[in-house]
Order: sequence, then structure tokens, then C-alpha cells
Amino acid sequence: MTENFQYRLLARDGGARLGEIATPRGNIRTPAFMPVGTAATVKAMYPEQVRALGADVVLGNTYHLMLRPGAERVAALGGLHKFMNWPYPILTDSGGFQVMSLSKLRKLDENGVTFQSHIDGAKHVLTPERSMEIQRLLGADIQMQFDECVKLPCSPEEAERAMRLSLRWAERSRKAFGTQPGRACFGIVQGGASPDLRVESARALAGMGFDGMAIGGLAVGEPQDIMLAMIEAVMPHLPEDRPHYLMGVGSPDDLIESVARGIDMFDCVMPTRAGRHGLAYTRWGKVNLRNARHADDPRPLDANSSCPAARDYSRAYLHHLMRCEEILGMMLLTWVNLSYYQDLMAGMRTAIAEGRFDDFRRQTKEDWGRAGEAVGAS
Amino acid sequence: MTENFQYRLLARDGGARLGEIATPRGNIRTPAFMPVGTAATVKAMYPEQVRALGADVVLGNTYHLMLRPGAERVAALGGLHKFMNWPYPILTDSGGFQVMSLSKLRKLDENGVTFQSHIDGAKHVLTPERSMEIQRLLGADIQMQFDECVKLPCSPEEAERAMRLSLRWAERSRKAFGTQPGRACFGIVQGGASPDLRVESARALAGMGFDGMAIGGLAVGEPQDIMLAMIEAVMPHLPEDRPHYLMGVGSPDDLIESVARGIDMFDCVMPTRAGRHGLAYTRWGKVNLRNARHADDPRPLDANSSCPAARDYSRAYLHHLMRCEEILGMMLLTWVNLSYYQDLMAGMRTAIAEGRFDDFRRQTKEDWGRAGEAVGAS
Repeated sequence: MTENFQYRLLARDGGARLGEIATPRGNIRTPAFMPVGTAATVKAMYPEQVRALGADVVLGNTYHLMLRPGAERVAALGGLHKFMNWPYPILTDSGGFQVMSLSKLRKLDENGVTFQSHIDGAKHVLTPERSMEIQRLLGADIQMQFDECVKLPCSPEEAERAMRLSLRWAERSRKAFGTQPGRACFGIVQGGASPDLRVESARALAGMGFDGMAIGGLAVGEPQDIMLAMIEAVMPHLPEDRPHYLMGVGSPDDLIESVARGIDMFDCVMPTRAGRHGLAYTRWGKVNLRNARHADDPRPLDANSSCPAARDYSRAYLHHLMRCEEILGMMLLTWVNLSYYQDLMAGMRTAIAEGRFDDFRRQTKEDWGRAGEAVGAS
Repeated sequence: MTENFQYRLLARDGGARLGEIATPRGNIRTPAFMPVGTAATVKAMYPEQVRALGADVVLGNTYHLMLRPGAERVAALGGLHKFMNWPYPILTDSGGFQVMSLSKLRKLDENGVTFQSHIDGAKHVLTPERSMEIQRLLGADIQMQFDECVKLPCSPEEAERAMRLSLRWAERSRKAFGTQPGRACFGIVQGGASPDLRVESARALAGMGFDGMAIGGLAVGEPQDIMLAMIEAVMPHLPEDRPHYLMGVGSPDDLIESVARGIDMFDCVMPTRAGRHGLAYTRWGKVNLRNARHADDPRPLDANSSCPAARDYSRAYLHHLMRCEEILGMMLLTWVNLSYYQDLMAGMRTAIAEGRFDDFRRQTKEDWGRAGEAVGAS
């Protein structure tokens, strides 16, 4: 581990792990959910709110930030933390995933990826070295290796080719990261839906001295059981003394099932994106506020929530705001969802510490079935 | 005055008035600026924020609320205050202005206006009686007479016809309002750009027992000197013991010049709308954050502002957010602008109390010229 960056495993409950990542910018309690701050903002949230919900770390997207406002510009302005008024830990992805999903006219070769910006068509090149340089310029506390992420399903040959390329890029990324006191570099396990390829990837990465291990290329369209099978195949080969990060995941159910299998960190746009589209995550399950049946419903989403947005506004009002496409609707529902996600993580952490993770898992899932009941005031 | 609704004139400084309107939902310090909460939300702001900035009252739009979510629905849900989580005073307009500016296929006659919704084309009718019924259903603390507002410039004949119709509608509105303990009904002076018509309107309304007097039909495209001339013509004919409300105004300069002439209340979409479009109002004047010259500017909008949004974020970051059309950009700049507007009102109130309104006016306008200077840290 790099100086001042330290993972401590505090407790185990079955496969679930309770831990803590110490960084110079503060501790990250694990299992942790990282709100996604794509373009240097967790959409529709003030940074103070994100923090108050219990988020110890947010994610920034290298692809978006290199295009706008540009890594060199952020560095000149004092780094991403100062830029976005978030003095706590930041993890940046490598750009590998989004360059394949968002950009136009990609050309991929051994060296890296040449692509056109989805914003203005300008040509850019991302290589392992440039990705790590961008992440260093941004000042990310946790930096991710540059990888190639294939969509599932894909052929075994394609999965293998991308996995091996990602391993070669992992070595180049680790070398380019160098030594950055207090900062960490994570490797990314690839291998599509093949347990064998996944294991091979994990074993190879384990020897490269990464400060943490991520599992990438999942939650890209495959069923949950495939995702969980890949986690189970890989887990025995991940170093126990490093954090395990499942990238781009997921639904509340995905989070619980992945924690049960040893995952420590998550990021996902689901709570923020769903909130902007009128979908609320609550203890009692999902509620689609765009649905006309809420138009006259005076109940809040959850009268006993820790989040004012879930307590102080009726479903009728939230429905009205979404129908009128009011910004406040997106603000309130994003707040509700991030609050629920952070409460879920906190609940899992407490349950692991107290050795009752299975009970927590069962009870939480039972509660999700109660969205239709009159439980607002319960 | 209605029971529990009371205007008190506390001090005068030249033409400027310091006062207080007592209502069962709290006092309104005047001169007051009312943020506009068109569709039951001050756009891009949590209600707690609006309150914390010093707003004692917000405005709701009858036209928008009758279309969505509907006045009867709001009443069934417990009224507009509860619906929008704003327990403090609310003033509603009559719908007269917006039915003429927003709706389609209008037909105006003595009885009222028949129109098609700009949202779904559905046919609606607004009369003085229905407007007052809607405002009562919403539960507004201050309700406005139904009037006809003409665009300027218009012919003297057209201004006279609309003024006389508005007077007849004023009598019907006052009668329909009836007696509502703790609530008030205001009349609206019309008459276009004609001092004679304005005076006639004001005199006629003064005899109808309204709890406050508004000046309508200004800030609709005419130069500021016309607006100020109309205020000066009307002011001697407005009851001294009632609040004077200038509708739909205005820029910071409009506010200062109108207060100097005896206006007590304002509403305007300018600070909120401008914020959503990247324009910031500060002590040092207007700053257009969309301008590329801010891309590398590390300075906040106003390092000594009372508003975190003006202090804790660089102009470079705000520029970035606006370029990326991020919701947070609209949230921060709306916050900056409403903060500036409320600070400006508070500054005027203090200056009137201390008998130095003219000095305040001069100094404030001098400061506006300094936007281009390096005053962020001063």
C-alpha cells in the first residue's frame, strides 16, 4: 500500500466484510456506495448534502472531465476536490468504459483508443499513460487502471482478447501511476462471463502490486445471476488485505447480494439518474412518482426517513413536480435516493459488525415488497 | 383591513417607506421582494433555502396552478402552504396577466376570459369570481383582484378600455373575496402609460376597501422612465395605510428606484430565471457565467457574500456547470441571485430606518460598476 492509504478489515459475517480505508482526505467506511459525480457534480445535489448523507467518497469520470473542463485546467485551478468543493476522497475511473459507450468513431489498438468527443466531435487519444496522467492531474485519491470493457453477451474470444489487452494495460497503468503518497491505484478484473478468464485476470493482477482490486465489465446488461457467479469465481483470488470494488453496480438488491459475497465498494448512476426520472428508492421498495395514481396521495414517501425530502413532501407534490418537469422534483428525488442508498450501506455495515447480516438481508428484502401498502406513517 | 392582516408604516426616508405587514402566518418586512413560485416551487430552490435567505413571502401563479395540479386538488391536499412545504405567507396573482401572455385562443368579454391551456389545449374560463375562488381554494394569504393587463405600448383607447374593465372586475373580485379572516385582497391600478388613466384607476380602487394596492401593467416592455413616471403619478392617490405593490418588477435598479418612490412589495422572475440561464446578480454588478472569459477564473462571485454559493465556488466551476447544462449550476446561481435580491431589500430597509436611503442608493449603484475589477477578495 502507498503511504497513508490503508485498508483495514474490521469484521466478517459470512462472506460480507466490514472495513475502513484510511486516506489523507478522510476515512472510507466499507461497504461503501460512491455517488457518481460525472462532470464534477453529483447531479442535482449540493456537495454538502452528499456529505451529510454519509458519503465518504464520490466518483469522477475521466472521460467527461478530460473533455470538459479538461484535466490541465482542473489542475491549474487547484485540483478536482477544490474545483467541485468536495474536500473528501475522490475515486476517478479510467475513461475506458465510457470511451467505448459514449464516444464516436473509436479506433482501438495496442497503444490505446482514438476517439471523437460525443460533445463536439474533437479527436482525442486515451492510452494507459494518458489516463493515469489525467487522473493524477485531477488529483484523485483512488485512480483506476485503463482497461477495455466489452458489452455482454460477447464471444469467449472477444472476452479473452479484451481481458489480455486489459492486463497489458494494467502493467502500463501501474507503472505510469508510479508513487503518489496518500493516493492509490486499483487494478480491474475483466473476462466477460467466463469464470476461467476472470480467475486468470484476478491472479495476474494480484501480482502487480495494486492497492485495491476492482471487478469491471459487469452490470452491462447480463442477468444478476451471471454477475454474482463472476463475483464468486473471482473472490478467492482477490487479496484479502485490499478493498474489493464492483464497478458500476447497482440496484439495492445487487448491492446486498454483492456485499454478501465480499464486495466493499460500489458506484452507480442508478439512484441519481432514477431520481431525475421520477423513480424513488425507499425502504418500502420503488415508487414511480410519474404514475397518475400518486396525484392525490397526501402521504410522504417515508414518514420515518432520515431524509427531509422523503418526510416533508407528499407523493402528490412530488408527482406534480415531475409532471411539470420542475428542477425541485429532480432535486428532491435524487436526495431521497442517495439517502436510501447511504442508509442501506450504513445498515449493512452495522449488521456485519453485529453478526446479523443474513437477518438484515432478509428483512430488507421483505420490506421492499410493502411499497403498495399504507406504510407511510408506520 | 381584515382581522389579523395589518400594515404598519414604521419609518419614512424621502419617498421610501419602511413597514411591516402582520399576517397569521408571519410578518412581512417591507420593502419586500417575493420570490416567484410559479408552479408551487421557487425553481431550483428548496423552500428552507428561500426562507433562510430572508424571504417572508412567496408568490404563486393562479394560471399555472389552476392548470396543474388544479385548485380543487390543492385544497383537498390541505392548501398550497402544505403542498409546497412553505408555512409562511403566500400571495397569489389573479391569473389575469398570464392568461393573456401564455394561453392560446383567448376570448375576452365582460364576463371574463375563455382560453386554451398552453399545456394541453384544454378549454378553461377565468372570471373575477372564479379567480377569487381559485385563490381561496389555494389558501393564499394575499389574493389579487382579477384584471386585464395590456402590453405596452398600446393606444390610449385600448388602455382606457382595459382600465375600465379592470375596475368593474375589481368590484366583482372584492365582492367575491368576501370576508376571510387573516387574509387580504388587493386591488390593481391599470391605465397603461397614461398618468390620467392611472390616477383615475387608483382613485376608484381606493374607494373599494382593498387591503392593499398594486400597480399592474408595468415592466411589460416600456422604458424605466415611463414606469417610474407612472409610479409617481399614482403614489399620491394610494392609501398611506395600505401596502403598495409593484407587480412583476424588476431589476435591482428598478427595485431601488421604485422603493425611493414609495413601493413596498415586488415580485419578479428575474433572479430565478437569470440564474437558470447563467447570469449572476452580485454587489459588483451582473456576471454572465456563460462567457468563456470565466473558464480559468479561480475567484468566487463574491468572497464576502452571505451566500455559500457566491463564496465557495469559483467562477471557473460555475462556468463549467453552465456549459455542461448541469442542474447544480442552475441551483447555485438561483441561490446567488435570490440571496442578492434579499440582501438588497434588507439593505434598503436598514437604510430607510437609519435615514440614509439616498446614500445607500448611490453607493449600491457605484458598486455595480465594479464587476470587471478584481474585487472578489475585497
